[in-house]
This record gives sequence, C-alpha cells and structure tokens, in this order.
Amino acid sequence: MHLGFAFLEIGLTRQKNTINILFKNIFIITIGLLLYCLVGFNLMYPGEFNGFLGFAGIGLDSPLTAEGALDLTYNEGYTYWTDFLFQGMFAATAATIVSGAVAERMKIVPFMIFTIFYVGLVYPIAGSWKWGGGFLQTLETPFYDFAGSTLVHSVGGWAAIIAVWLLGSRIGKFKDGKPQAIPGHNIPLATAGVLVLWLGWFGFNGGSVLSADPGLTSLVLVTTCLAAAAGGVVAMLVSTAMYKNLDLTMFLNGILGGLVGITAGADQMSPTDAIIIGAVAGVIIVLAVRFIDSLRLDDPVGAIAVHLVCGIWGTLAVGIFGELAGVDQFISQLIGVGSYAVFCIVTAFIIIFTLKKTIGIRVSEKEEIEGLDAHEHGMDAYPDFRLNEH
Amino acid sequence: MHLGFAFLEIGLTRQKNTINILFKNIFIITIGLLLYCLVGFNLMYPGEFNGFLGFAGIGLDSPLTAEGALDLTYNEGYTYWTDFLFQGMFAATAATIVSGAVAERMKIVPFMIFTIFYVGLVYPIAGSWKWGGGFLQTLETPFYDFAGSTLVHSVGGWAAIIAVWLLGSRIGKFKDGKPQAIPGHNIPLATAGVLVLWLGWFGFNGGSVLSADPGLTSLVLVTTCLAAAAGGVVAMLVSTAMYKNLDLTMFLNGILGGLVGITAGADQMSPTDAIIIGAVAGVIIVLAVRFIDSLRLDDPVGAIAVHLVCGIWGTLAVGIFGELAGVDQFISQLIGVGSYAVFCIVTAFIIIFTLKKTIGIRVSEKEEIEGLDAHEHGMDAYPDFRLNEH
Amino acid sequence: MHLGFAFLEIGLTRQKNTINILFKNIFIITIGLLLYCLVGFNLMYPGEFNGFLGFAGIGLDSPLTAEGALDLTYNEGYTYWTDFLFQGMFAATAATIVSGAVAERMKIVPFMIFTIFYVGLVYPIAGSWKWGGGFLQTLETPFYDFAGSTLVHSVGGWAAIIAVWLLGSRIGKFKDGKPQAIPGHNIPLATAGVLVLWLGWFGFNGGSVLSADPGLTSLVLVTTCLAAAAGGVVAMLVSTAMYKNLDLTMFLNGILGGLVGITAGADQMSPTDAIIIGAVAGVIIVLAVRFIDSLRLDDPVGAIAVHLVCGIWGTLAVGIFGELAGVDQFISQLIGVGSYAVFCIVTAFIIIFTLKKTIGIRVSEKEEIEGLDAHEHGMDAYPDFRLNEH
Repeated sequence: MHLGFAFLEIGLTRQKNTINILFKNIFIITIGLLLYCLVGFNLMYPGEFNGFLGFAGIGLDSPLTAEGALDLTYNEGYTYWTDFLFQGMFAATAATIVSGAVAERMKIVPFMIFTIFYVGLVYPIAGSWKWGGGFLQTLETPFYDFAGSTLVHSVGGWAAIIAVWLLGSRIGKFKDGKPQAIPGHNIPLATAGVLVLWLGWFGFNGGSVLSADPGLTSLVLVTTCLAAAAGGVVAMLVSTAMYKNLDLTMFLNGILGGLVGITAGADQMSPTDAIIIGAVAGVIIVLAVRFIDSLRLDDPVGAIAVHLVCGIWGTLAVGIFGELAGVDQFISQLIGVGSYAVFCIVTAFIIIFTLKKTIGIRVSEKEEIEGLDAHEHGMDAYPDFRLNEH
Repeated sequence: MHLGFAFLEIGLTRQKNTINILFKNIFIITIGLLLYCLVGFNLMYPGEFNGFLGFAGIGLDSPLTAEGALDLTYNEGYTYWTDFLFQGMFAATAATIVSGAVAERMKIVPFMIFTIFYVGLVYPIAGSWKWGGGFLQTLETPFYDFAGSTLVHSVGGWAAIIAVWLLGSRIGKFKDGKPQAIPGHNIPLATAGVLVLWLGWFGFNGGSVLSADPGLTSLVLVTTCLAAAAGGVVAMLVSTAMYKNLDLTMFLNGILGGLVGITAGADQMSPTDAIIIGAVAGVIIVLAVRFIDSLRLDDPVGAIAVHLVCGIWGTLAVGIFGELAGVDQFISQLIGVGSYAVFCIVTAFIIIFTLKKTIGIRVSEKEEIEGLDAHEHGMDAYPDFRLNEH
Repeated sequence: MHLGFAFLEIGLTRQKNTINILFKNIFIITIGLLLYCLVGFNLMYPGEFNGFLGFAGIGLDSPLTAEGALDLTYNEGYTYWTDFLFQGMFAATAATIVSGAVAERMKIVPFMIFTIFYVGLVYPIAGSWKWGGGFLQTLETPFYDFAGSTLVHSVGGWAAIIAVWLLGSRIGKFKDGKPQAIPGHNIPLATAGVLVLWLGWFGFNGGSVLSADPGLTSLVLVTTCLAAAAGGVVAMLVSTAMYKNLDLTMFLNGILGGLVGITAGADQMSPTDAIIIGAVAGVIIVLAVRFIDSLRLDDPVGAIAVHLVCGIWGTLAVGIFGELAGVDQFISQLIGVGSYAVFCIVTAFIIIFTLKKTIGIRVSEKEEIEGLDAHEHGMDAYPDFRLNEH
C-alpha cells in the first residue's frame, strides 16, 4: 500500500523532488509504526473510556495480558498482534495523504514534526471515537465507517487542505489566477502506484472484515473492485467530455475515488450499490479537482479530491445505499463527518500554524526552483539521465 | 497480474506510446470487470444450457439466490463472489494479450470497442464451453484446461494474430523484408513485469484449484515454478546458441512461455513433467518468435509466441504427459484447440474487420512517428527527461 | 522478494550495467529452482545423516513416497511441496546477495558458474547442519536461526566479501585511498525494492513459522516490522548526525539491516526486544558501511554490511534477548556463526579463486567503462533516454 502511494506521488510530481518524497514516505512508515507501538494503539483502543480520550498505557502488552486487560471487541477473530499491525498500517496512511498534497515545497523537518504529532496523537484519538468504542460508536444509531472513508481518508484529507492553504501554491502553478499544468515526471510509476493501491485496498477492506468469514470477505472484495472500476470509467468519460482528451491521470484518480468512496460501506453494499457509489465518486473527482483549482489551492497529486471529498461522499453514502440506509443513519453519518472535520481542522491548524510561525514550513524560492533533492538531501534521483529544467 | 502485463508491455515498446498502452490496460481492467458483472459471468456460467450458448440473466444475483439458482459445480469450495472476481480477472487478461500485440499503431477508440465485444461476449461464451459445463466438458473424454492455456491465453492469442494481420506492421519494422529490432524503452520495467506476472500466475494457477486443498495447491505452485524456470533457462540457452548473445528479452519470454505451457495441466503433472513441458516451451518460444517475424507479422511484445503458440503446446501436453495422458485425451485436446481456434478467429475477424472498414483501426503515419501519447492523450510519460527520437 | 532485490541492485548502480544485473538475477532464480529440485533439497534435508553431509537422492520424490522416506520433522504442518518451494526461494537468495556486491565489474559466465556451485551445493549442505537436523541442531543447546540470519544472509554475505576481495574495486571507486560516491541511477526503483523486500520478509519470516498458528505468525510479523522500522529510523538519525545529510540510501539500508537482524529470532522476541535489535542494527549499518569502505572493499549496494554484519548481529542477539537468552545459547550461536564462516569462506574462496585463475572473473577496463550491457548483452536498458557518461 505504501509502495503504491510512493509510486503515485513521485510519478505525479517533478523529478527534482523525488528523493524528498521518498524520504518522507519512508519516514512516515517507520516512525508511524514505532509511534503506534509506543502510544497510538493504546490511545485508539483504550478499553473502557469516556468516549473522547482514553489511554491504556505505554507500549504493547503481551498477548496474554492483552486478552485480559483490553476490550478489543471490534477485533474478534483477530489476534492482538495482527490487529496492531493492521491498524498501524492504517495510521501511517493518514500522513501519507498529506505528504502528497504538500509535495515540492514543504520543508522536511516541519513535515516530520507534523507527522509525529498527527500520526502519534491526532489519528489514534480520532480513531478511538469509533473503532475504539467511543462516542460515535455509542450513538443510538452508531456512526458507521467500515474501513476508514472518514477515519483514515478524511482525517488525512482535512490535514491536507489545511497544510496546502497555510503553505501556498508552488511557484508557477497559478498564472493570472489560472491554474497551469505541472506534469508529473513518471506516469508509468504513477499508474503502477494506482494498481498497487488497488491491490492494497483488497487487503485494507478485505482485512477489515476482521474475521475469516469467506462470504463477507469476498463480497467486500467484489464491491471494492466494482466501485473502483466504475469510478475510473466514469471519471474518464466525464473528463473526456469536458476536456476532449483521453486523460490517463483522471482515469487513475477516478479509480482511487471509487476505492475511497466504497470504503465506508464496502460490507453493506450490493454490487449495484457499489457501482453507483463508484460512478458518483468518478463524477465528483473531476468536479472536485476543478473546484479545488478554482480556490487556488495547489494539490499536486489530487489528494484532497480523492481522500477528503470522496471520503465524505462514501461516508454519507452509507446512509443512502445498502443495508443500513435510512434517515437516522444518514444523520449519524453527518455527525461523524462533522466531528472529524472539526477535530482534524483544529488540530492540523494548531500544529502546522505553530510550525509556520516558529521554524517555518516553506523552502526558499531558490530551493524550490532547483529542487528539494539537491538542497535537503544532496542526492539526485536519476543521476545518469539528462533532464529538462522546469 | 495486470500490473505485470502493463510493465511488460510498456517496457518492451517505445516511450512515445507509453501513456497509450497504460490507458488501454487500465481501460481493459475497469471495463472488463463491469462487463463481466453485467453479462459476462452469466454467459460463462449459464447453469443448464445447450452447451454452446446460454445466459443466466443481467447482473449479479445476491449470494442466497445464487446458491439456489445457479449450478456452479465447477466452483465447489469457492464463494459465489470469489468466483466472480477470479473469473473477471481472467476475462480481462484475454484483451490485455491483444493490447500488447497491436501496440504503437492501433487507434484507441476501435481498440476500446474491440475490447467491449471480445471481453464482454466472445470470451465468456468461449469459456462456457468448458468451464461453464458446455460441450467440451461433456465430451466422452472431456477436454481439459486447468487454468486457461487455451481458454485464456489462446483466446487472446488468436485475436492478437488476427489484429496484427489486419493492422500491418509498424513503420520501420521490416526493411527489404528483414525484421529490424525496435528496442523497448525500459527493460527494468519489462523485467519487473515478468516477475510480477510469475507471482500473479501463482494466484491464477494456485487459485484454480478452487478449494483449500493444500496438497494439490502446493503441487500446482511447484509445477508452475519449475516450468517457468525451465522455460527461461532453455530459451536463454537456445537463443544464446543461435544468436551468440545473452539476450535478456528471450530469457524473459521463455519464462512466460513456460508459465503459459504448464497452465493447462498444472495440477496433473509431476515435477519432471513440468520441467519437460517448460523446457519445450523454451525452445518453442525462440523458434516461434523467428517464425512470426518471417511471416512479416509485427508483434512488438512477442504476445503471439507466448500466449498462442505456448498455449496450444500446453493444452496438447495434457494428452502427452501427466495423469491424463493418452490417445483419447490427446484427441479431446485437439478438438478443444480447434474449436477455440475457429470461434476466436471468426469472431475476432468480424469485429476487427468491421472496425477497419468503418472507423479505421490504424493511426496516421504522422501520429505513429510522433507517438500516440502526444496525439491521442496530449501527455508525455516522462516530461522531465531528454529523449532520443526514433 | 527477488523483484525487490533486482530493483534495489539496479537502482543503486549505474544504468550502463542494468541489463547485466537483471540477467544475473533472473538466472539465479531460474537455475536456483532447477538445481534445488535436482540436488539441493535432498542435500539440505537428507533425513538420517552424519550431521555434516548427507544426500537423499536426485530429484523430488512423489508426495506419498516422501512422507514415508524423508524425515522432514522441521516441517510439520507444511506439505512437502510447499516446503520445497519455500526453501528453494531461500536458496536463490544467497546468490542474489553476492550478485549485488560484485555488480558493475564481474564477468557474467564465471558468475553463473559460481551460482551453480554455491546455490546447488554449498548452500544446501550448510543448511543441512541446522535445518536438515545436522550437528548444529543436535548440540546440547541447539544453535538457533529462525529464518536465516546466518543460514541465508551470512552464507551469502561471506561469499560476497570473498568475491569483492578477489575482484577488486570498480575503476574510480577509490581515489588517493579515499572512497568516492558512485551514485545509483534510479533511486525510486531502489526504494521500491526495499518496500518490496519488506513485504517479502513478511513471507519469509511469517512462513518460517511453518504452521498455521496465527498467534505466533502474527507476533513474528510484528517483531519483523518493528525491527525494520527501528533500524531505518536509527540509521537515518546516526547518518544524519555523522554526515549532516538526510541520506535516503542509509535510511533504506537501515531498514534492511533491521530485517536481517530480527530474522534469527523473530519468533523469540517481544516487541521491545525487536525494537532494540533493530535499533542496534541501524547503528551497525552506518558504521559497517564506513568500515568496509576503509578496508577498500567496494560493495556497490552495501550487501556485506546488510547481510553479513547484521546477519551475525541478529544471530548473536538470540543469545542476548528473548526467550532463549543465556550464556549457553550465546555460545551455541557463536559456534554456529563460526562454523558457517569457516565453511563459506573456504568454499567461496575455492570456487572464485579457481575461476579467477582459469577463465578470469573481471571484465576488461574498456568493458567496465563502457558498461557491461553493451558488451555482454548487446542491449541498452533505456534506449529512448539521453544519458550522462560516468
């Protein structure tokens, strides 16, 4: 999954910032796992708690203690260790989403600090509200988010939009108010990234069944696949109609939008529901990318459109389609979306604004033009190849 | 698996057509799944039918209804949904094989139309003859094709040869009747593609056991692996002997040839049988590539040699080696190969010839020379790199 | 796994030797499997034997015969075929480690001959001493190596150091006795290689549990992951402190060092132990790379530091941390490390020295400067791209 994100992000950006993006992604995975082991897991699954914030202690317990001490009722059929690993991988994803949105202009040290706070504290506290048995789980009609349209993708997406706003757009992205294309440097890698992510999503959504029920697991894989396919085809058709161009990037983003969209209700939908949810996500992606551009927010890889906008769509769709559909459920979904919006916007703002006012978050103009790889890492991604400047 | 095909195809062709190939492959996967959901699955597994053509209705049934309504006897031990997904992935493969063979010169819209008919109708109808319980399954000695040497690979291969013939060769491929090398632009990706395909084959062949029998599944993985290894080593040795050159491409094609060759009988062969079948495929590949060149058929990625020729070899090998070997079985294998040949040649010809005479299937000379990426997609695959023209 | 090694090795070397490295790796995988089938498996698991050298006969037995004839007690819960495949993949790894260390200057034919002897004979005989039930297994306190810190990684590492020593350094690597950076040509592929290897390690270490015990398997995955993460983060911090540079390559090598380090005791360690073992490996990597440079040994991909030095560390760590820790165990671990050192150094020296004195092992100066791809394979890896000379 992280390989997929890394491929996608470097593929859709310029070669001069490739090392920087890879370094950030490797940092997110490694530090994310260590933090999740140290505090995250026990913040997210605190056992009995007030529903907003609880903590079961530093580090991982032994399996035997764990079975007695922690109430991991969400996780029946899983071992304690599998659960840790699975949730730890999710945790890192939230920061990866931000990494793509701030690419090509954010200093690396503040990004690393942001990652530590957001992955180590914000994500698991937010997660405890629902998956840890917190207040969104104990609503009369519980908020529902099967595999993280909101808990993972929107949590990352809200931070991405705050970061992009505080950071400003890349030099040359907007000319006389009009967005300019800054083409990605390696489209085969970006495409490979999407295919790897699709496969990774099988793991995320399939694994979220949290049991060995082959019937439900296989249904989840089918709904996941059909939503991805529908999202891609519809985004391709809509963007071709709007721009008269068979745009591969939009096709790929449509697939990702479909995947994010189905994630909240992948186990609740029929194949037909899944196709509709994916198709709507495909339309949303094309419109959202244009809308975000019109706000002069510069998101090089389309992370906000994919993860935030389609994450919200997918979460609300649980109230509209499938087994749980109904007015009460829709209201619960709205409460969930709103709660995460407030918490993530506030915390992301506090972290990033503090960093901006202290150590600064944006690289110098010279560094941005010459590339972050040369300045922050002293390395080239492709030293044997002759390159164009831009 | 589709990642492997995409890597292989772009790696073995020129950079100026990379976006086009990726777009085609992404289209095949997404539309293939949607079509298989809409009509393909129920054409392929129609339940009781006349053995040639049946249809169980539009769309996917719910699992409960399915268990009652459909006779999926081939698929014991599988859920309805797993089966759909697994077969849907197979379905898309047939068009992917064609995609490689027609690369660098076929217009994208007619290719998309071809894909819709071939994946949506031809492949599942052909599949119903054997896997759906049709007339090849009800022969006195049933035709045998474990995981698709004929049903998948030859079905794709026959369409590939028809398409290549109707399309003509790329500009510059034949000079004074002699084939010219047009080197692929990214050999590391092509190699990665083969390794990914090898891994994917574990899934295809291992999954085709269609049960959780670990003994048979693991035997299938061993025969698959040994045939691949033998195919690669033998193709490398033969091509080194013939051309005095340690040719990596031929090594890779030998591996693929071995994989296609073992696919029809992967569960029927001993390790020694598997090595022999793979080794013969390794010889066949080198000779077939030369023979296809001598017919002035231009197949940029060697798809016809790998999928059609080794597919036929593997299917016939079931009558020669392993548990089922015998004259009756060999005759049934011949009947199967012949039936698919006739059906696929006729249908592929009708579809592609009709497209040729109506909207046309070949890009303009200017577009071919400048690359399909610039003309059909308005994108470059590697905009930051300086490129050679050819 | 082999995809990961291939990506890593070509990414960290120059483009002009890419085909050569890919060819070697594909050769290792294919010939390795065939040799392991022919003789290796039955050398490694000879049943009753003298503890140093035994042989159960040519080729693979049928499963039924095997159950009677071979005493595969190590492999309870596994089928004979799974075991063959799993061990065969391990076998090839040992030669892959050497492939990276000798890159960019070793002739391909002697490398192929070395591979045949080392993978076909040395590796399985060495393996029989422990995994085959030989003398290291029958010590009073048995030597312990869960998934191959010594049996796989050090066995490869010892041969790598001998080969690098007999081969000499690349032209331009040492100037006035000081090591010069020769940057790798494709860092995205190298990074992808590490992520793929990490995933592959899940298979190696997880699979080494050799049973379907989900508790132990999932603990192994957690210790594996935490050691990798700790190794990466610590190597990054240490190298940043020493060289004032956020060096992605060192980050990646730290991850690999942590993975190799945990491999010997992945099923014996608590999460905290795993983090400590990984962190120490992270320190070791940075120091070992510098130390190997100071010996004027030229190891282009850092294989000796990663596989040999961290392999020894991981093996000894079983005597220091975890369930088995104790003086007796530590002594057994030392005996194991020493036995493999002597055997591998001697055999690797005999093979490579003989090759050096007969057919020669080093390419000509002209060939090294112009690249092995053009001379040994007559192919370019990236013919469409304009390249820098160096």
